Amino acid sequence: MIKIGIVGYGNLGRGVECAIRQNPDMELCAVFTRRSPDSLNILTPDVPVVHMDEILSWQGKLDVLILCGGSATDLPQQTPTLAKHFNVIDSFDTHAKIPQHFAAVDAAAQAGGHLAFISVGWDPGLFSLNRLYAAAILPQGKDYTFWGRGVSQGHSDAVRRIPGVADCRQYTIPVPEALDRVRSGENPTLTTREKHTRYCYVVAEEGADKAAIEQAIVTMPNYFADYDTTVEFITAEEMARDHSGLPHGGSVIRSGVTGWNGESKQTIEYKLTLDSNPQFTASVLVACARAVSRMYSRGETGCRSIFDAAPADLSILTREQLLAQLL
Amino acid sequence: MIKIGIVGYGNLGRGVECAIRQNPDMELCAVFTRRSPDSLNILTPDVPVVHMDEILSWQGKLDVLILCGGSATDLPQQTPTLAKHFNVIDSFDTHAKIPQHFAAVDAAAQAGGHLAFISVGWDPGLFSLNRLYAAAILPQGKDYTFWGRGVSQGHSDAVRRIPGVADCRQYTIPVPEALDRVRSGENPTLTTREKHTRYCYVVAEEGADKAAIEQAIVTMPNYFADYDTTVEFITAEEMARDHSGLPHGGSVIRSGVTGWNGESKQTIEYKLTLDSNPQFTASVLVACARAVSRMYSRGETGCRSIFDAAPADLSILTREQLLAQLL
Repeated sequence: MIKIGIVGYGNLGRGVECAIRQNPDMELCAVFTRRSPDSLNILTPDVPVVHMDEILSWQGKLDVLILCGGSATDLPQQTPTLAKHFNVIDSFDTHAKIPQHFAAVDAAAQAGGHLAFISVGWDPGLFSLNRLYAAAILPQGKDYTFWGRGVSQGHSDAVRRIPGVADCRQYTIPVPEALDRVRSGENPTLTTREKHTRYCYVVAEEGADKAAIEQAIVTMPNYFADYDTTVEFITAEEMARDHSGLPHGGSVIRSGVTGWNGESKQTIEYKLTLDSNPQFTASVLVACARAVSRMYSRGETGCRSIFDAAPADLSILTREQLLAQLL
Repeated sequence: MIKIGIVGYGNLGRGVECAIRQNPDMELCAVFTRRSPDSLNILTPDVPVVHMDEILSWQGKLDVLILCGGSATDLPQQTPTLAKHFNVIDSFDTHAKIPQHFAAVDAAAQAGGHLAFISVGWDPGLFSLNRLYAAAILPQGKDYTFWGRGVSQGHSDAVRRIPGVADCRQYTIPVPEALDRVRSGENPTLTTREKHTRYCYVVAEEGADKAAIEQAIVTMPNYFADYDTTVEFITAEEMARDHSGLPHGGSVIRSGVTGWNGESKQTIEYKLTLDSNPQFTASVLVACARAVSRMYSRGETGCRSIFDAAPADLSILTREQLLAQLL
């Protein structure tokens, strides 16, 4: 059995707990939290909830720690700190800072003789993996990534910071015509505005100036100004009834050419349709935790990404089963 | 530079030659053939065409031999024989015989101290890879593979053996309603007939009994009897004009559930749309040849599949480039 600890128990941590239950070779041994352990009700019976201050007393008792904190402030500190003492895996998703995070985690994991995986999920993660495979197979081609239809938590948070906004759920939506053109192998050059639209469901505070809120949203630099954005005001009841889930998904498409003169079009698409973004990310983390455990037991230390794991190491099946059933 | 030799120069071998040209870290060093070398016109200038009888004189001069023979009779002999003397890679695609082929190649490669990859292409190959990743991530789920719209060479050949048939091109076509049901996450149970239809373009010999040909096709056991099959007679000119390509493709879809009570549906789809089946298979072989070369240089020997190669080993990019550009 692979012994797992979860650090942080929000949507992602709970998703990891659920995913472990689906994998018979894994066992949840402890959940670590910065909150008061008594205040936390986890789903798995008889598993201890432990305060983060005591985590070092668990050294040697866990195969992999799955870190479920946020990328803005938690993981840049937590992953290197914990990689000195445990094998760890995180879902760090600030693309621009990945090289720097990798270097910090690598140094810590090397120093402690442990193995760490960073940026595991679907983007970064499975989408990255598909960009790599597709580019290796079709060197003469072009990549497209479309996100959605799904809830962007960063954009929802940005709207919630506008004065007068009580709540917001922001959906990112790929433009169907852009998707069709890319899928046809046309290799179009697309602007930001041509690829995605944004749709905001907003609950306004009583007496708030809705026109001012809408204006503040659609002109917000980086987040909305470069997109066609629609703002719809709804009630708190409608928000709770229709928008409590965190669906997401998207497509990575590479369209390229083969043949002596590039005469054949070839298109590879990888598409996710997810009812629950955090639960799916959690499921990817758990499969990769298996790889961490196996690679560490073969003597590997330092930092890795999903690019470094042989696919077979993610699977519960033996090599014989893989050859006979899946190849 | 990775030095490549091609064994066999049909559609697949020529596709490999074209793919090598797209990869600046690779060099085609020789094409080996059982035909008279003088009779072969290859595309790359100044590359020798060598008779198979002389292949052993090339030991030590090539990093990887890419074997482009057929799975029925060529590869079961060739791959183990050549794996004693070279690093090799093949596209062996008789699914039921993969474990047996793997064992034979593994023994030969171990004995010779070489590394071999078998069953590399898109199915087996990329489709297998996606079945593995998707099943590891969504253990509670169901797999579906749809092939087409594309030309099945095995089915086309079977029709050509019917008396009175001068030529045939058989297209395998997924049933749109079945694809829609699977994509929606419904997890239906589908019969063979519900998943695919078959469409045969047939050129009849002069004076042939077309009704008898049609009857022979639609009732043919294994190949057509379990499918809804349409037969359309066309002229040799129409065949040459409209059906000279070898397009193919398909989708691997896994639909599963996550959450404590399986409350969230999650769907993963991997889809290929290929103008040229052999050229695409060739492109996968060439990317994996890079992995063979790298893994061998790290001391690995024996037989492997695409399941055993870390994705990074397929890419021309360095680890730093992968982290900064693709993760």
